[in-house]
Amino acid sequence: MRATVLHAARDIRLDDVSAPELHEDTDAIVRVVASCICGSDLWPYRGINKIGGPVRIGHEFVGIVEQVGAGISTVATGDFVIAPFTFSDNTCALCQRGVHTSCVNGGFWGNNDKQGHAVDGGQGETVRVPFADGTLVSTPSQPSQELVAHLLTLSDVFPTGHHAAVSAGVTTGSTVAVVGDGAVGLSAVLAAKRLGAAKIVAMSRHEDRQRLAREFGADEVVAERGKGGAAAVREMLDGIGADQVLECVGTKESMQQAMLCARPGGRIGYVGVPHDVELNVPSMFGRNVGIAGGIAPARNYIEELLPEVLNGTVQPGRVFDLTLPLDQVADGYRAMDERTAIKTMLTI
Amino acid sequence: MRATVLHAARDIRLDDVSAPELHEDTDAIVRVVASCICGSDLWPYRGINKIGGPVRIGHEFVGIVEQVGAGISTVATGDFVIAPFTFSDNTCALCQRGVHTSCVNGGFWGNNDKQGHAVDGGQGETVRVPFADGTLVSTPSQPSQELVAHLLTLSDVFPTGHHAAVSAGVTTGSTVAVVGDGAVGLSAVLAAKRLGAAKIVAMSRHEDRQRLAREFGADEVVAERGKGGAAAVREMLDGIGADQVLECVGTKESMQQAMLCARPGGRIGYVGVPHDVELNVPSMFGRNVGIAGGIAPARNYIEELLPEVLNGTVQPGRVFDLTLPLDQVADGYRAMDERTAIKTMLTI
Repeated sequence: MRATVLHAARDIRLDDVSAPELHEDTDAIVRVVASCICGSDLWPYRGINKIGGPVRIGHEFVGIVEQVGAGISTVATGDFVIAPFTFSDNTCALCQRGVHTSCVNGGFWGNNDKQGHAVDGGQGETVRVPFADGTLVSTPSQPSQELVAHLLTLSDVFPTGHHAAVSAGVTTGSTVAVVGDGAVGLSAVLAAKRLGAAKIVAMSRHEDRQRLAREFGADEVVAERGKGGAAAVREMLDGIGADQVLECVGTKESMQQAMLCARPGGRIGYVGVPHDVELNVPSMFGRNVGIAGGIAPARNYIEELLPEVLNGTVQPGRVFDLTLPLDQVADGYRAMDERTAIKTMLTI
Repeated sequence: MRATVLHAARDIRLDDVSAPELHEDTDAIVRVVASCICGSDLWPYRGINKIGGPVRIGHEFVGIVEQVGAGISTVATGDFVIAPFTFSDNTCALCQRGVHTSCVNGGFWGNNDKQGHAVDGGQGETVRVPFADGTLVSTPSQPSQELVAHLLTLSDVFPTGHHAAVSAGVTTGSTVAVVGDGAVGLSAVLAAKRLGAAKIVAMSRHEDRQRLAREFGADEVVAERGKGGAAAVREMLDGIGADQVLECVGTKESMQQAMLCARPGGRIGYVGVPHDVELNVPSMFGRNVGIAGGIAPARNYIEELLPEVLNGTVQPGRVFDLTLPLDQVADGYRAMDERTAIKTMLTI
């Protein structure tokens, strides 16, 4: 089968690799229908996160179950399934508390599982799924072609935006600022709107992203960054700043931006993978600004978000503005690296 | 009148100072009945927080209203009142959101108010109270002598422990670890118990404090610190750690201790004034550990906590293990500095 392999910085290829096989009774094999490229894939692609040698990549996919182990009971051959961006047993003490990303049996696509078997990346033709009963969520029936992109966002980007909003405590009547206009930031706007936010300010300098932010529910857009941008956000939000700020980038600058936009007593929900992030704890203390979030336990949210995706109430797949066949995966990375695409979907 | 003045590190005296007068229509003059010494008073007392010259000190007091300005309507001469440890108008957008410590008209005892008038410290015989309607909470009737110590804790220490618990999200069934066995840490145990925590582990090395922690609701006590202590806490709490950790010290070590005690997905409520605190954001991200808290908006909590103090359901004043007359204030500081007292009450 063919799968995406990152050989070195900016050297990404679709290689022929061995097809996966069932190793454990709790495994399943899924034929990928659609995958996509994540902003976090750009860190190793750009060489900022070092890699030791060729690595399989991709952690967002939907597909059809082709084969199941003897111990599988909740997914069946032929099911259309959504795979969250980490695998997990959905039964351990941490999964029970909704932190599937810390599952005692869990792990990441493209790495080894705890049994020592290699696990495929998501940007390939087929994937062995460990703990398939716990990991995968089946749709009630085969979805239409139009729904595939929206369902694919349930792998990562929509639950990640949702996690930012939930971690910060967005609720009915909240005032919200969103830092970051990538696919996660835009998803965070959608999630905040869905949770009942009364006013949402999106920070964005790109016209196409500003437009989508407004369509997803942003009431205002602020293009300016830094202290001036934060002052504009505060002015729009009762002159005091946001009840919740959703930090969807992960840099020192974006976290500072978030801190400046929060009102005293506000909360920052952060889901941008932190690179060189610093927190000024004494300033947080004096202003009672809290921070929560982290790597999103997507699996915990899929069942909650799925019905509204299926019935079209939310259309999170609109973050995809480029769709390519898998054999053009390198073009997909280039487009996201150069910011000519917000998010690239790969069809298999 | 006499008031406590910190002249230099460890040089604290009861000096004769001018009696306060009403400056604004919204002022009141309160004759102090009881005051106390806070762990945070020890920072300048020990010379760790530098002072530029003699300063008035003390920010926790209860007393009797002696005089009110023309614009005062909710407190009256003769009322027994509780003063939170910051003054605030209770009407601005931030007070309305419960963040009285960020009140646009607020400030700290012992400093100037926003009109430029000096404000008395709480460790003295009388205090001019700015925005007295907003700042002070009257008891429904004159309290018994036995209740004074318990009511005095509503100035700061009990609401501060409560703020740690509320900020971390302690609720019915929570598992909680408390770092710090000072008066705030002990109050945090009491607050967590009151909020319905199912299991509370107090970290304490002092027998008298361990005993009070248990009486306030701690189910277990861990004396060991560092990684070993954290491992013991995690073992007691489902093998994964605490849903909420209440950090009541404010040092790098105590924050690290709190991080080690939290389960993935857990929250730290922190109220220890941060000195040299560092946060490992990438580690927080991977484990989804959030942090919230800060300087406690005591005023926001007094009305909620008062009824249970008045009817004896909670007895937060048990943190006072030394009571001295005001003219022995220097002995009170020495006892807390040398940790021979948990918390000192000063009667006037």
